[in-house]
Amino acid sequence: MTIQRALGTCYYPEHWPREQWANDARRMAELGLKWVRIGEFAWSRIEPEHGYFQWEWLDEAIEILGENGLKVVLGTPTATPPRWMIDRHPDIYAVDEMGNTRKFGSRRHYCFSHLGYRAECERIVDILAQRYGGNPHIAAWQTDNEYGCHDTVISYSEAALHGFWRWCEERYGTIENLNQAWGNVFWSMEYSSFEQIELPNLTVTEANPAHCMAFRRFSSDQVTSFNRLQVDAIKQFSNIPIAHNYMGRITEFDHFEVGNDLEIASWDSYPLGFLEDRIDETEQFKHEHSRQGHPDFQAFHHDIYRAVGKGRWWVMEQQPGPVNWAPYNPAPLPGMVRLWTWEAFAHGAENVMYFRWRQAPFAQEQMHSGLLRPDSETAPAFDEALQVANELKALSTDENVDAKVALVFDYQSAWATDIQPQGKDCHYFDLAFDYYRAARKLGLSLDILPPDCADLSAYQLVLVPGVMTLSSELKQAIEQFAGQVIAGPRTNSKTDEFAIPSPLPPNFPGLDATIEYVESMRPTAQVALNTRGNFIKWQEKIASSAATLAQTLDGQAAVTKSNNITYVAGWPDQEALMYILAEQCAELDIPTELMPASVRRRDTKTHRFYFNYGNQAQNIAGVTIEPTGVYWSEQIST
Amino acid sequence: MTIQRALGTCYYPEHWPREQWANDARRMAELGLKWVRIGEFAWSRIEPEHGYFQWEWLDEAIEILGENGLKVVLGTPTATPPRWMIDRHPDIYAVDEMGNTRKFGSRRHYCFSHLGYRAECERIVDILAQRYGGNPHIAAWQTDNEYGCHDTVISYSEAALHGFWRWCEERYGTIENLNQAWGNVFWSMEYSSFEQIELPNLTVTEANPAHCMAFRRFSSDQVTSFNRLQVDAIKQFSNIPIAHNYMGRITEFDHFEVGNDLEIASWDSYPLGFLEDRIDETEQFKHEHSRQGHPDFQAFHHDIYRAVGKGRWWVMEQQPGPVNWAPYNPAPLPGMVRLWTWEAFAHGAENVMYFRWRQAPFAQEQMHSGLLRPDSETAPAFDEALQVANELKALSTDENVDAKVALVFDYQSAWATDIQPQGKDCHYFDLAFDYYRAARKLGLSLDILPPDCADLSAYQLVLVPGVMTLSSELKQAIEQFAGQVIAGPRTNSKTDEFAIPSPLPPNFPGLDATIEYVESMRPTAQVALNTRGNFIKWQEKIASSAATLAQTLDGQAAVTKSNNITYVAGWPDQEALMYILAEQCAELDIPTELMPASVRRRDTKTHRFYFNYGNQAQNIAGVTIEPTGVYWSEQIST
Amino acid sequence: MTIQRALGTCYYPEHWPREQWANDARRMAELGLKWVRIGEFAWSRIEPEHGYFQWEWLDEAIEILGENGLKVVLGTPTATPPRWMIDRHPDIYAVDEMGNTRKFGSRRHYCFSHLGYRAECERIVDILAQRYGGNPHIAAWQTDNEYGCHDTVISYSEAALHGFWRWCEERYGTIENLNQAWGNVFWSMEYSSFEQIELPNLTVTEANPAHCMAFRRFSSDQVTSFNRLQVDAIKQFSNIPIAHNYMGRITEFDHFEVGNDLEIASWDSYPLGFLEDRIDETEQFKHEHSRQGHPDFQAFHHDIYRAVGKGRWWVMEQQPGPVNWAPYNPAPLPGMVRLWTWEAFAHGAENVMYFRWRQAPFAQEQMHSGLLRPDSETAPAFDEALQVANELKALSTDENVDAKVALVFDYQSAWATDIQPQGKDCHYFDLAFDYYRAARKLGLSLDILPPDCADLSAYQLVLVPGVMTLSSELKQAIEQFAGQVIAGPRTNSKTDEFAIPSPLPPNFPGLDATIEYVESMRPTAQVALNTRGNFIKWQEKIASSAATLAQTLDGQAAVTKSNNITYVAGWPDQEALMYILAEQCAELDIPTELMPASVRRRDTKTHRFYFNYGNQAQNIAGVTIEPTGVYWSEQIST
Ligand SMILES: [Zn+2]
Ligand SMILES: [Zn+2]
Ligand SMILES: [Zn+2]
Repeated sequence: MTIQRALGTCYYPEHWPREQWANDARRMAELGLKWVRIGEFAWSRIEPEHGYFQWEWLDEAIEILGENGLKVVLGTPTATPPRWMIDRHPDIYAVDEMGNTRKFGSRRHYCFSHLGYRAECERIVDILAQRYGGNPHIAAWQTDNEYGCHDTVISYSEAALHGFWRWCEERYGTIENLNQAWGNVFWSMEYSSFEQIELPNLTVTEANPAHCMAFRRFSSDQVTSFNRLQVDAIKQFSNIPIAHNYMGRITEFDHFEVGNDLEIASWDSYPLGFLEDRIDETEQFKHEHSRQGHPDFQAFHHDIYRAVGKGRWWVMEQQPGPVNWAPYNPAPLPGMVRLWTWEAFAHGAENVMYFRWRQAPFAQEQMHSGLLRPDSETAPAFDEALQVANELKALSTDENVDAKVALVFDYQSAWATDIQPQGKDCHYFDLAFDYYRAARKLGLSLDILPPDCADLSAYQLVLVPGVMTLSSELKQAIEQFAGQVIAGPRTNSKTDEFAIPSPLPPNFPGLDATIEYVESMRPTAQVALNTRGNFIKWQEKIASSAATLAQTLDGQAAVTKSNNITYVAGWPDQEALMYILAEQCAELDIPTELMPASVRRRDTKTHRFYFNYGNQAQNIAGVTIEPTGVYWSEQIST
Repeated sequence: MTIQRALGTCYYPEHWPREQWANDARRMAELGLKWVRIGEFAWSRIEPEHGYFQWEWLDEAIEILGENGLKVVLGTPTATPPRWMIDRHPDIYAVDEMGNTRKFGSRRHYCFSHLGYRAECERIVDILAQRYGGNPHIAAWQTDNEYGCHDTVISYSEAALHGFWRWCEERYGTIENLNQAWGNVFWSMEYSSFEQIELPNLTVTEANPAHCMAFRRFSSDQVTSFNRLQVDAIKQFSNIPIAHNYMGRITEFDHFEVGNDLEIASWDSYPLGFLEDRIDETEQFKHEHSRQGHPDFQAFHHDIYRAVGKGRWWVMEQQPGPVNWAPYNPAPLPGMVRLWTWEAFAHGAENVMYFRWRQAPFAQEQMHSGLLRPDSETAPAFDEALQVANELKALSTDENVDAKVALVFDYQSAWATDIQPQGKDCHYFDLAFDYYRAARKLGLSLDILPPDCADLSAYQLVLVPGVMTLSSELKQAIEQFAGQVIAGPRTNSKTDEFAIPSPLPPNFPGLDATIEYVESMRPTAQVALNTRGNFIKWQEKIASSAATLAQTLDGQAAVTKSNNITYVAGWPDQEALMYILAEQCAELDIPTELMPASVRRRDTKTHRFYFNYGNQAQNIAGVTIEPTGVYWSEQIST
Repeated sequence: MTIQRALGTCYYPEHWPREQWANDARRMAELGLKWVRIGEFAWSRIEPEHGYFQWEWLDEAIEILGENGLKVVLGTPTATPPRWMIDRHPDIYAVDEMGNTRKFGSRRHYCFSHLGYRAECERIVDILAQRYGGNPHIAAWQTDNEYGCHDTVISYSEAALHGFWRWCEERYGTIENLNQAWGNVFWSMEYSSFEQIELPNLTVTEANPAHCMAFRRFSSDQVTSFNRLQVDAIKQFSNIPIAHNYMGRITEFDHFEVGNDLEIASWDSYPLGFLEDRIDETEQFKHEHSRQGHPDFQAFHHDIYRAVGKGRWWVMEQQPGPVNWAPYNPAPLPGMVRLWTWEAFAHGAENVMYFRWRQAPFAQEQMHSGLLRPDSETAPAFDEALQVANELKALSTDENVDAKVALVFDYQSAWATDIQPQGKDCHYFDLAFDYYRAARKLGLSLDILPPDCADLSAYQLVLVPGVMTLSSELKQAIEQFAGQVIAGPRTNSKTDEFAIPSPLPPNFPGLDATIEYVESMRPTAQVALNTRGNFIKWQEKIASSAATLAQTLDGQAAVTKSNNITYVAGWPDQEALMYILAEQCAELDIPTELMPASVRRRDTKTHRFYFNYGNQAQNIAGVTIEPTGVYWSEQIST
């Protein structure tokens, strides 16, 4: 599949005097931008009173952008219901875990389960699609904005409660089935009707994890069906692609499920903000990367969203300078905006859209930089975007590389470890990310796979750490797989109803092994392996007839292998993981290259790219790459 | 009093297919277990709808266990009211300090003050006792389960408010008396009727400590009367002993008061979980003991509950492997389950019951290990229990040693320092525990005494640190005591109504001394003594005509003594405390033995036991004790 | 203006038997005290039921004090509405940010916006003033007590909501104006009526900062008008001075606004408590000053309140020993109570009043020391007060020095950085305090100026760091100013409606400079300057034609100067700040003297004072000053 690369930006005509629009559009075009996203927060300007519409300004804005050759992504405005919506639906709000109603005054102030709000969204999207579905300048749609941002997936509202009753009824049929599935005999938690079930917050001690898992599934399903409502409304009048802009490290809903209804996946990439507010690294690491971001975090999401988009994905919002929302908001090193942009392209992005065209001088995001300053002078990112635009002339198309290694990523496993981590820092996301970045440090280009992947035959090596329940599709795919699988810890350790399976885990196709017990360990504890590195956080006592590839210093089996299945019975640190992966790649003749410091590499079909996220120059592939430097070559030295 | 030692387990027949019961019972008996606890969470199976009972399964379970020679402890199921109870009593719940109602979905979801629930409990216990009071296999009762676990003693519900009004009226008679007793003239807090009093939460700044203390006393009394209700109901139909299973470091209710209505005290001993979630030690210390537990914490509770049970006490739940509820849940070192069991016996336990027979694969505690794995294979603790069962054959009976040293432990003092610690880390429990473990490091076997103890004549040395109000009984006992008393800091520093007494503290029988002022100190500060060690956390300026046993380096009196009273005018660190205690013991010819590292010793009437909680072998008493090792000898080298 | 220095104390006759009053008054007079504050918490004793008054005790107390030559400050009792008030006004309470009502049982349990309570306050103050306005012993009034203590300025109650609607209507006139001013087009936050506006709590993500700023202004204005109500009531019957006792580091209301209605500013100075609970310093620093307090914190407030009182100010409550409310409550070093007292006098205090005469043995503050112990014996502070009383005989009058350096202090800027700090530790108070203490370490005596100061001509150097919006008065004053101004970072960076101004900041009179972007930095990051010291926390990219006084090591302009304006484009550490200030002072021939360690100096018109807050003796000005030592001389070596 050929990828056409382009740049774009996010624009809010409603924020600026109308006389400024034409000049803005002209400058965008001159900069070399091809795409503009608009409209996603403009409901109060489109429909200032219920049923009273103002189209003229939006018509004109689209027209001006279009006449300057820009393709428009039109956002549905449902992330920001106007104030009059509250008068119509006073109970529209989500309710937090402590029972507090989350009020009007910012954004995302709605509960996904509220039926009245769903109808309003259907109505406005229908009207929008009808009006602009045939507009020649509209080239794509965006539904809503950043589902799940600000902890908005999970709501303990009355609407959610009623929705959950019906969801449970649909899944379990009878209350007896539900009691059985959840193990409600424990602590006399048995129900006699669906309407007796409460949402699992504010319990005296932890709620039944099966109850929690059902609620998390329901909550994720509500996002999917909310999005589908909009997709269905749009598709009545338009057949251009529909996207949603996901965020970084939001795991509360299943992005694969939402993505199944969309043509394009996109995400909002804020490397510096994310480093400070949602990545588990040492202070020292954050200090050294505070102006560059984490060298693997963006790549990981690029690869996830390439999977979610079934190959088609964008960066819908690209950080262009300091932002306003992280605990600390430094400026990127000069060159990083270019680096981030090229890294997205190397991972197969079609478009990279800078957020935002011009910094707004008012309201919540006034300290969020743009390509332009509030006074319309250029901000530092402007020249970097210009450089990329020029570089793109020679590299405007490409194709994704055929990756040899894949990692299965599973949202439900993230819910499982949210609900019952067993050790307080044992979260699935971190485990998957640890595998991912160890592979990256060996220079590997990976694909991400969904947990219901039914065919692994394109790969030589597939990683499935911590996937708590293997789907029947994946189980079958593994059975038929000729390549190598590396699994564990915790892989296949729960049934679909959050119980310990029988026979005991891992119960893996082709591996004779039993986890006798598991233990989580304090951060001060680690278990040295006789090969390289240590187990941290988590360790499993495994009884197996398989070969022992590594053992702990006190002689317990740590890594076992039989047939094409390797099981890692603990949480390996990076040294241990890189050793395991490197050995396996060597055996498979998959070439690896040890990355120096914070340099990372990514292949496309035609090029090999190196990105230096570090603060020192590094020599690799016969060249010196300065900090913030990007190097690419057509020769791929596999 | 001769102690008959035995082992047991906790079993949930309702969790398993009926066809498994006989095999389970047989295996228990073969393992050498004598006791099984059942029934304490089974209300929804006993009474699935209000007034509709299912006895058949419980009859059969008891019969099967009994026929295998097992004695049954039958628990009242009141810790887990079924869901139908909520329909009958929608306001049954406790309310937390922030005003949030603590909902259904786990356990202990009731307020002790709810009169409707009290009636329901009386009803079900009455019915249970009537049915099984004469059953030959039922050998003991357990009331409810772990009073106070999950912060459930203190409730800010409407039911509690109404109960508190009547409690105040009973204690103070008139509102004028209450105003006077609490000092309500301060800040114009005077009331004109009992119904004007609110519960002391959500105040703008701290509530009156006298108000808080009254509420804490009320809350504790509610537990006592709730338990007594069940005891009275049982005793109508049964005269076998009644126990309750207390927890570790729950100080919100007065265990001595509850214990006065019961024949047996028992507690649930989770050394690894407690180390991580409720013990104030350094990270280094926790790291070194993470697979063994704190070397003094279990012993302290063993001794407290021996006092609470007036000599008769059990471990009702013994941790057998990793648990599910601590921040980190490692596995015990091999041998620790045996060590913990023997340590309980050395402190006079009658029974040690492992929790639980088989690990449940479902619901909240699915990651809590048992003697068996979920697949019925043996877990590591099984063989250790077997070893103890065999060792018990030679040591099945014993008697408690006549301790020479006693420590007064007072729940009200814990409430006082919860309410007004004066320094944020100055909690009574820690102070009492510091005294206890200093004595233990000198090899002493202690008794714990209640704060209304009226006779000290059995002892040579009595420790009363931090007992905020000396009861008239204890004051008189001290006056008549021929032995030595060590008191302070803070001993007798409050009146019974939480005021500073006149004359000023310590106002101790036989000691001419006045505390001129007190101060709390930041963790970075400590005050060196001219003898050994330091004062930490707390220091008192004392004016006294008594002899000065130690002074601070700037010349203030730190430890004074007159007649048989030693007063310690600060919070001594372990080095200081051990020196004070060792000197006093030497004077009294009480033999001490300095414990190496984490080794501890405990005497019975016939044996001396050593327990190595450390991670290195230690030489003591002429033998080498390996880590996790237990050594005992009949010769007591006093 | 000549200052008459005196000592006093705070006394609660209602706490003690009437027969003790005469003796207390006699001892106060003998100690040399001249002033006594009474009455401020006595509402329930003055008016035990609504409309039923008991004056006799208060008449007598005032008479006894007066006859012993003591001047009485009479407090209005409105900080502690009695319990019957709640029956009359059940909704009197403030509501916290989470929506919890803050209940009865301590103090300050009222919402400033509650109209019913305002009427009650007007009533009681009117009655009090009528009764005692002509009493010859009453020499001053105090309104309420410690506005803002315990976070009581900001309330999310219904009363506040309604008040805020009217406040907005008055400020903005029309809802369109408000929408425009706040930038509500952003995120579709537009309103169609004032009654649609909610208070800015419990929003899904942060509320509009303009909305928050309006609410903070409203909240501050409510304090001002509440206080003015009392002032107006008093002034009907009395023309003696009226004071309020402010607290340390309470910035939620504009003290200058409240102070404009009062004759005297006073504050409650608790150096040890404040060090532990509200000062941002290292643990090491706190450790070294735990018994002395911060060497600049009291001085800073003395100078602020001298400005708030337009020259007239007192210490209404002076810490005399350990208090009860800080996390740790050590005793001051011997001599510190004298030092604190003299420091207040050196900064121009008229009175220093010790809180309290006698330690109360009951209720919330029973662990708060006084001049007397609860048993009426003298506490350590008594002798230090006596020493000061004797020393005062020779130094009873003085005059404030004519300071050459002034610092503008602005409460609104504190609100701005509360609302949107941009870096999580970037708070205005700390920035202003950093400037202040750097100047103090150079031996400078400063004045504080309000942000609407219209005349700077008395000074040679004026500091305006972080004043977010320059008032028109101050802008004009700067334009006309012949001296030097040092500004930045963040100075003049917001419009009056919390937007980024156009042209971009600093837009400073006489300085050609543009802040291109700003960034906040993690605590691990700092930017070295080529002169001395570093920027920490905050850095600005400045484009300027002005001279560069300092630059960062990578060549960016850090400190620029043009005409008489110096702009500091970052948050300087103490070394950088002292260098900037010392260079500027040298240029202006303002003499500086580098203070050793924790020694500080302060000049009056006639004397130079040195205070040693450190724990070691220091040599300065040719003398050796011991720890806690105060040295003064008549020769001012300027
Ligand atoms: Zn067109
Ligand atoms: Zn039988
Ligand atoms: Zn008179």
